[in-house]
Amino acid sequence: MKVLFRQTQLYKFLNYCNKINLEKNVLDCGAGGNCPPLALFLEHGYKTYGIEISNSQIEKAELFSEKHNVQLNISKGDIRELPFEDESMSYIYSFNSIFHMKKRDISKAVEEIKRVLKPGGICFINFLSVNDCEYGQGEKVGEGEFLQCEGDQKVIHTYYDIEEAETHFKDMKILSKENRILERIYEGEIIKQGFIDYIVQK
Amino acid sequence: MKVLFRQTQLYKFLNYCNKINLEKNVLDCGAGGNCPPLALFLEHGYKTYGIEISNSQIEKAELFSEKHNVQLNISKGDIRELPFEDESMSYIYSFNSIFHMKKRDISKAVEEIKRVLKPGGICFINFLSVNDCEYGQGEKVGEGEFLQCEGDQKVIHTYYDIEEAETHFKDMKILSKENRILERIYEGEIIKQGFIDYIVQK
Repeated sequence: MKVLFRQTQLYKFLNYCNKINLEKNVLDCGAGGNCPPLALFLEHGYKTYGIEISNSQIEKAELFSEKHNVQLNISKGDIRELPFEDESMSYIYSFNSIFHMKKRDISKAVEEIKRVLKPGGICFINFLSVNDCEYGQGEKVGEGEFLQCEGDQKVIHTYYDIEEAETHFKDMKILSKENRILERIYEGEIIKQGFIDYIVQK
Repeated sequence: MKVLFRQTQLYKFLNYCNKINLEKNVLDCGAGGNCPPLALFLEHGYKTYGIEISNSQIEKAELFSEKHNVQLNISKGDIRELPFEDESMSYIYSFNSIFHMKKRDISKAVEEIKRVLKPGGICFINFLSVNDCEYGQGEKVGEGEFLQCEGDQKVIHTYYDIEEAETHFKDMKILSKENRILERIYEGEIIKQGFIDYIVQK
């Protein structure tokens, strides 16, 4: 398998995981899609588990798994209620997922991730930032929370101030925080995206 | 070869290159070190060329090449005077290199990269930004230019305002610009690094 993943933060997180000496298991929260990140972990010797709320994303991941003959253990589930034992996972990855919820639910999800993480284990989580060009667009449904059109659906996007997510990590060690403002050409137009990526240790 | 590269921007750039239909050749400017980025391009079917000014970095790359039995074509050279024909390279990569020069020399280097790049070809170049915690440290030798200690040597580091590098790319198309502020633990202390990564097309 010589797959190149679009989420380059995945490679960074794997580099961090490889330096920690815990059982090699990893959970991806928001694990579906046509190029599931868990495949890279599997290739590097990790036992993989994934949770995904969307049936269509699960189906895409299944097609990938069939094509590449891999077993990634992705099941349907909700990140706010993880079907895993306390302190059972060494590494947890969640890329571009958690901000599709309101802040109250993000708090629940982060608490679940912390519950499932082993002591000494690390997780990657990223947030949309107020630097994003979509911040403030759509119907405001809470502080930093907006209902926005995605295709023909209305979805929640939640935006954080640059320091705000740290409230979730008061009992964690922040190993890396990357505040990224990305301008790129997308479908012929320049868009500006704002993300804050954290790697934190329990 | 199952090497994991620390420079995750490399994966992003390779994703961009793979979408462009030009001859698969690539030049790395600042190509040495113990995990040379060109090895990833080679693995993905590219003909590779590298320029490196430091003998010790070339030696490290040679050890890597022997160990992994690859030929990367890295030679000693100066990015301000590239030993390649006009419009001979489809892709040029230069990561964490160009800011070790004064602005006058950075201009020369960028002009050289543009000369060597094929029309339609793309390059990755990144700059240190004024958000870096080292900005303003050491002996000021020019606007944004500082002589700073690195080990027992004094080296130039040049810092750019967030829009400043665009003056180099007026005749190029900016496909991606990422302004990154990275806080991480390095040797037990939190450091703050500021980078601006560009992918531009001729």
